Amino acid sequence: MTTPVPVGIIGAGRIAQIHAKALAHLIPSANPIAIADINLDAARQLASELGIEHAYDDHRQILKNPAIEAVIICSSTDTHAPFMIQAAEAGKHIFCEKPISINLGLIDEALDVVKQHGVKLQIGFHKRFDKGYRDARQLIESGAYGEPRILNLTSRDPAPPSLDYLKGSGGIFLDMTIHDFDMVRYLMGCEVEEVYAVGGVMVDPKIGSYANDIDTTIITLKFENGAIGTINNCRQSEYGYDQRVEWFGSKGSIQVENEKTSTLVTSNNDGISSAKPPYFFLERYMDAYQAELEAFIQMLLDDSEPEVTGLDGRMPVVIGLAAWKSYREGRPVKLSEIDG
Amino acid sequence: MTTPVPVGIIGAGRIAQIHAKALAHLIPSANPIAIADINLDAARQLASELGIEHAYDDHRQILKNPAIEAVIICSSTDTHAPFMIQAAEAGKHIFCEKPISINLGLIDEALDVVKQHGVKLQIGFHKRFDKGYRDARQLIESGAYGEPRILNLTSRDPAPPSLDYLKGSGGIFLDMTIHDFDMVRYLMGCEVEEVYAVGGVMVDPKIGSYANDIDTTIITLKFENGAIGTINNCRQSEYGYDQRVEWFGSKGSIQVENEKTSTLVTSNNDGISSAKPPYFFLERYMDAYQAELEAFIQMLLDDSEPEVTGLDGRMPVVIGLAAWKSYREGRPVKLSEIDG
Amino acid sequence: MTTPVPVGIIGAGRIAQIHAKALAHLIPSANPIAIADINLDAARQLASELGIEHAYDDHRQILKNPAIEAVIICSSTDTHAPFMIQAAEAGKHIFCEKPISINLGLIDEALDVVKQHGVKLQIGFHKRFDKGYRDARQLIESGAYGEPRILNLTSRDPAPPSLDYLKGSGGIFLDMTIHDFDMVRYLMGCEVEEVYAVGGVMVDPKIGSYANDIDTTIITLKFENGAIGTINNCRQSEYGYDQRVEWFGSKGSIQVENEKTSTLVTSNNDGISSAKPPYFFLERYMDAYQAELEAFIQMLLDDSEPEVTGLDGRMPVVIGLAAWKSYREGRPVKLSEIDG
Amino acid sequence: MTTPVPVGIIGAGRIAQIHAKALAHLIPSANPIAIADINLDAARQLASELGIEHAYDDHRQILKNPAIEAVIICSSTDTHAPFMIQAAEAGKHIFCEKPISINLGLIDEALDVVKQHGVKLQIGFHKRFDKGYRDARQLIESGAYGEPRILNLTSRDPAPPSLDYLKGSGGIFLDMTIHDFDMVRYLMGCEVEEVYAVGGVMVDPKIGSYANDIDTTIITLKFENGAIGTINNCRQSEYGYDQRVEWFGSKGSIQVENEKTSTLVTSNNDGISSAKPPYFFLERYMDAYQAELEAFIQMLLDDSEPEVTGLDGRMPVVIGLAAWKSYREGRPVKLSEIDG
Repeated sequence: MTTPVPVGIIGAGRIAQIHAKALAHLIPSANPIAIADINLDAARQLASELGIEHAYDDHRQILKNPAIEAVIICSSTDTHAPFMIQAAEAGKHIFCEKPISINLGLIDEALDVVKQHGVKLQIGFHKRFDKGYRDARQLIESGAYGEPRILNLTSRDPAPPSLDYLKGSGGIFLDMTIHDFDMVRYLMGCEVEEVYAVGGVMVDPKIGSYANDIDTTIITLKFENGAIGTINNCRQSEYGYDQRVEWFGSKGSIQVENEKTSTLVTSNNDGISSAKPPYFFLERYMDAYQAELEAFIQMLLDDSEPEVTGLDGRMPVVIGLAAWKSYREGRPVKLSEIDG
Repeated sequence: MTTPVPVGIIGAGRIAQIHAKALAHLIPSANPIAIADINLDAARQLASELGIEHAYDDHRQILKNPAIEAVIICSSTDTHAPFMIQAAEAGKHIFCEKPISINLGLIDEALDVVKQHGVKLQIGFHKRFDKGYRDARQLIESGAYGEPRILNLTSRDPAPPSLDYLKGSGGIFLDMTIHDFDMVRYLMGCEVEEVYAVGGVMVDPKIGSYANDIDTTIITLKFENGAIGTINNCRQSEYGYDQRVEWFGSKGSIQVENEKTSTLVTSNNDGISSAKPPYFFLERYMDAYQAELEAFIQMLLDDSEPEVTGLDGRMPVVIGLAAWKSYREGRPVKLSEIDG
Repeated sequence: MTTPVPVGIIGAGRIAQIHAKALAHLIPSANPIAIADINLDAARQLASELGIEHAYDDHRQILKNPAIEAVIICSSTDTHAPFMIQAAEAGKHIFCEKPISINLGLIDEALDVVKQHGVKLQIGFHKRFDKGYRDARQLIESGAYGEPRILNLTSRDPAPPSLDYLKGSGGIFLDMTIHDFDMVRYLMGCEVEEVYAVGGVMVDPKIGSYANDIDTTIITLKFENGAIGTINNCRQSEYGYDQRVEWFGSKGSIQVENEKTSTLVTSNNDGISSAKPPYFFLERYMDAYQAELEAFIQMLLDDSEPEVTGLDGRMPVVIGLAAWKSYREGRPVKLSEIDG
Repeated sequence: MTTPVPVGIIGAGRIAQIHAKALAHLIPSANPIAIADINLDAARQLASELGIEHAYDDHRQILKNPAIEAVIICSSTDTHAPFMIQAAEAGKHIFCEKPISINLGLIDEALDVVKQHGVKLQIGFHKRFDKGYRDARQLIESGAYGEPRILNLTSRDPAPPSLDYLKGSGGIFLDMTIHDFDMVRYLMGCEVEEVYAVGGVMVDPKIGSYANDIDTTIITLKFENGAIGTINNCRQSEYGYDQRVEWFGSKGSIQVENEKTSTLVTSNNDGISSAKPPYFFLERYMDAYQAELEAFIQMLLDDSEPEVTGLDGRMPVVIGLAAWKSYREGRPVKLSEIDG
C-alpha cells in the first residue's frame, strides 16, 4: 500500500469539516495531520474529533510544516487567493474551494504564482465529481447522442443564505450561478461566448434593498461551438434543492434528474405522490465532496493533471462578471468584453 | 374500397352503445343496420342517434334479416349462449361479449353449434386489443427477455358494482378475474395447470352476506410451461382502476404500468404529485373496445381466424371454476379436476 | 335537445379533415352541412365520407347559404384574414385557424371588420384545450402554488416540414413558436413585455440557405407581472414530439410532462426503458382539436365569449415579430417597439 | 458526550468488515476494541486497517475481556446460536446476524439463555432500518391509508450464490425469503397464519440437482389480521437487485420502489431509458447496515428495548420451515403445524 499523502486543512468551518472527515476516515490514501483556523477552538475540536495531530490558529504553521505535502484551502473566500499564493510559495500542492476570488486580477496573480512554483492545483467544483454529471459528460463525449444543440441547467436552492452573507458574496452570478457556469463548460466541452441575463428580486425584497443582489435569474448562453443554452436559478424553492440538467443533441437528449429522498410512492384519491429531492447541497453532493478529494490525492500520487484546473476556476468568474454586466446594462455581453 | 360488412347489434345497454358508436362512426368497414333490444325504446333511441336503419324488440328479427352477415351479441350474460346458438343456426358470424356463460356445459353446447355451422366467432376479451398488452406479448414472444419465470397481474376496480349485480354474476372469479385469466393465457402462451385462491370480504360485508361473494383475492398460478404467477384483485381501490402486468423472464422483465389521466406533475413542500389512473374500464379501454371490433370485421373480410377464439372464451371459465373450488376447499386445484 | 348549429367548413386539407370529422361524428351539437375547397374533388370526397350535404369549389357559396350560422376557416394561411372579413360581412360566426396572418396590418383590419359586424370569433390555438395545460392554468390561477417566478416551455418537433413550406411560413417564430407565445400568455395570465432570441441552423443547412429561416432557438421572456421565462424550440427531435411546460412559483412548481405512447416498461442489463412521446401534433392533440370546436359551438349556443379571442390571435404575432427583430439585431426587443 | 460503548466483533468476513468499519468510523458512540476470527490473519488485517486494538483467533478472548460490553456476532450461521449462548453467559449484550439458526430447537435454547442472563439482544434484520421501509411502516401505522388488504413483496437477486453456499444454507426460504418473512411481519404488524409456496428450478439446474434447492418461488400468505399477500423471489435478475414492496389498504396504497444507480435519463429513437437498481445488497443497504448498529448501540445507552427482538429472529424461521413443508407437500401450511 502507498504511504498516505500528508495534508493540512486550512479552515474549520462547515465545508472544512466535511473535507476533514472524508480525509480522516474515508480516504485511506490521505493522512490529515493538521488543521488551522483563526478560531483555534474550532480547529482543536475538529482535530480532536477526527484524531488529527495538530491544531493551529495560523495557517502559516501548516505551510511551515515540512511533513505536509498538500493543503486543503477551505477558509473564507477572500483568503483563497492570498493563501493559495503563500501555499505555492511554500511548495505545497493545493486544493482550493471555489471561487478563487471574485476579482479577476487576484485570480490571475494567484494562478501565476502557482504556475511559477510548479505546484499542483485543483479547484473545488465538486459537482464535476457527481456520478450523474460524470455519466452525462461521458455520454455526450461518446457522440452517441449527436452534436450538441441546447443545454439547459436548473439550479434552485431551498432557501436563501443570510442577507449578510449575500452582501459579501459577489452576488448571485458569482456565488450561486458560478457552479452552473462551471457545469456548462464541463458538459459542453467548450467556452461560453456570450451571455444575456434577466431576473429580479422575487424571494425577499431585502435581497435587493440590503444586499444589492437579485434572487431569481435566467441566463441565456451562446457557446463557441454554436450551441445555445439557459441557466435557471432561484434562491428559494418550496420543494427543495432542484438540480437538473438537460442536454439536447442531434441524436437524442440526456437529462440528469433530481434525486429523491426516498423511493416511497403513495396513491390515494388525491393522486400519486413521491418524495422531494434532498434538502440541499450537503445532502445532495456528499459523495461528490468525497470524490473530489480522492481525485486530488490520487492526482498527487500519480503525478497527473488535475481534473479541475486553475483555468476552470477562472472562467466561471469571467462568465459571472459578464452576467452581471449583462443584467445591469440589459443587453447580451460577450466574454471578450470582460476578458479582452 | 371494400363494401362495409352489414352487422346487427343485439343489446342496447352500456357496452352495446360503445360498440354501436364504434361501428357507426369509427369503423368504415362496418355497416350497422339494425339494433335489437327487449327494451324497444332503448333500441330506437340508439338507432336514431347513430343513423341506424332498423330498431327491433326481438333479436330474431336480426337473425332473420338476410342482409345481415354478422351479429354483435352484447345482451345480458345469460342470453349469450342461447343467442350464439341461434345466430350460428341462422348462419351469422358472431362477436360475443364475455363470458359465453358461467356454465361449462352451456359453453360447450354453444361452441359445438358454432362449429357445426362453420360461422366465425370472436369473444369480447377487449384487453387483448390494448396497445400495451399487445406490445408486451410481442416482446415476450420475441424471446428478447428470455424464458418466462413469473407473471404477476394486478386488477383493482375503483368501486364494486351493485350487490344485485354481484349476486347474479357468478362471483369474483367468473366476473372480474376472468379477464385476468384470459390475460395470463394471452401473455404466457400456454395453459394454466393449477390455481390456489385466497381472499375474503374486505370492502363491504354485504358482498359476503348478501351476494355470497368475496371482494379481494390473490390467485397463485402454475403454468404448463413451468412458470408461476399471481393475480391480485380487489373490488375497490381508492386511487382508481389499477391495471398492471409484470412478466419476469430469464433476460429481463416487461411491465405494463398504469396510464395516468394527465401528465401534470406538481411539486411543493409535501412532495411530488402526479395524476391518478383513468377511473374505470370505459376510460381505460375505449381504444381497445374499438380495436376488437375492427379486428372482428377485418377477420370477416379476410376470411381469417379470430384473435380470440371459442376456446379462449371457454378456458377462463374453467380457471374461474377451479379458483372457486380452491377458495372453498382451501387447497390448490388442478384444472383437470374441473375439466377432466 | 338543442338544434345542432349548422356550420360550413372552408378548406379540405389535413386540419380541415380533422375538424370536419369531429363536427360530423363527435360533436352532436354541430351540424356540418357544407365544405368548400378550391380543389372541388377534395371537398366532394370529404363531404361524401362524412355524409355532408354540399361540396363547393368556392367558399363564397358557403357564405351565401343563409342556413349556415358559422364557418370554420382552415384554408391556407394567406386566406385567413380575407375570408374572415368576408365571413364577418356575411354575418357568419367564425372559427379561424392560427395565425390570422403574419402581417399585423391585415390582422387589425380583419379584427376591425369582425368587431363592426358583431360576429363571434375564436382562433384555433388548440393547445389551450388540452387537458394538461388547462389543469395547469387552473392550478396556477388557484394560487395554491404561489406567485409566478419562472415559466419554461419546451417545444420540439420530430422532423422539419418541407423547405418550401418553411419558405412561406413566416419563419420559426411565426410558424412554430407562435403556439408557445400563445401558451405563455395563457398560463401567465399577462402580456409579454420583452423578448430576446438566440438560435441558429443546426438541423439542416438548407433551412438557412433556401428558406432563410432558423431551426433551433431559445427565446428569453420578460412578463408584465415581473416573472421571467424561456421557450425552447427545435424543428427536429430524435425521440419525437417534445411538449413540456414548467411553471415555477413561490409555493411550488407545476409541470406538464410529455405523454408516452405506451405504459410499457422493460428492464434488462442495459437499464430500464419506456416508450417515446406521441410522434407529432396529430397524435398528441387530437382530443384538443375536438375540444376547441366543442367550445366554439357551445359558445355560440350559450351566446358567451370565446375562450380564444381575436386579441389572443393577434398578440402571438406581435411577439413573433419582436422575436425576429431581436434575433436579427442581437438584442432584447420590447413589444412596444413592434406595436407602439 | 457519552462514553462510547466498548464492543467486540466476532467474525472478520464480508459482513463483519462492514460492521467493523461502521463501528470504527461512523458511529461515534461505539468503540470497537477487539475482533476475533478463526482466521487470525483476517482479524489482524481488519483490526490494523481500522485502528482496533486487539485481534484474536478465538471469540472467547472477546467474551473474557471485561472491558467489552457488547458483541457483534457475524461469524458463520452455524456458530450464531452457540456464540449467542456463550456471550449471554459472559454477560455481554448481543447483536447477532440473521438467522439465529435454521434449527428451531437451537433458536429456542439460545433465546432462553439470553433471557435467563438478562442481556439485550438485537437480530440483524437490516432492512428494518432502511429509510424507505421505515417510512412505509410509519405511514401504514398512521392509518392514513386505511386497513390493510394486500401486501406484495418482490425480492430478486442479481445472481445466485455458489452452489456450495446454497447446499448449506437451509434453502431459499431460510436463506433468502427469510428477509421477506421478517419484512411482512414488520410492515403488517401481525403474525403470518398460513403459507402456500410454489416454485422451481429456473435459473440453474444444479441448484436443484446439487444443492437440492429451488431458485424461483412465490409464497402466498394469510395474515392473522385477515389480510393476504405474496412474496416473489428469484435468485437471478438480469436488471439487478429488485427490492420492492406494495402495501394496499382501504384508503390507498404505499409502494417502496427500487432505487436507481443514477438519475440519468436518455431519450432517443429507441425510447426513454434510465438506470438500473443498485447491483446487490451491499450497494442497496449500506445505510441500513450502519443504522441497525447505531440503533443497537443507542439501545444499550438508553437501556431501552431492541427494535428487532429474539422473537423477530425466530418467527421468520418458523415461516420458512412452513414454506418448505408447503412446497414439498403441495398444500397450504399453517404456522401452527410447525410451531404447535
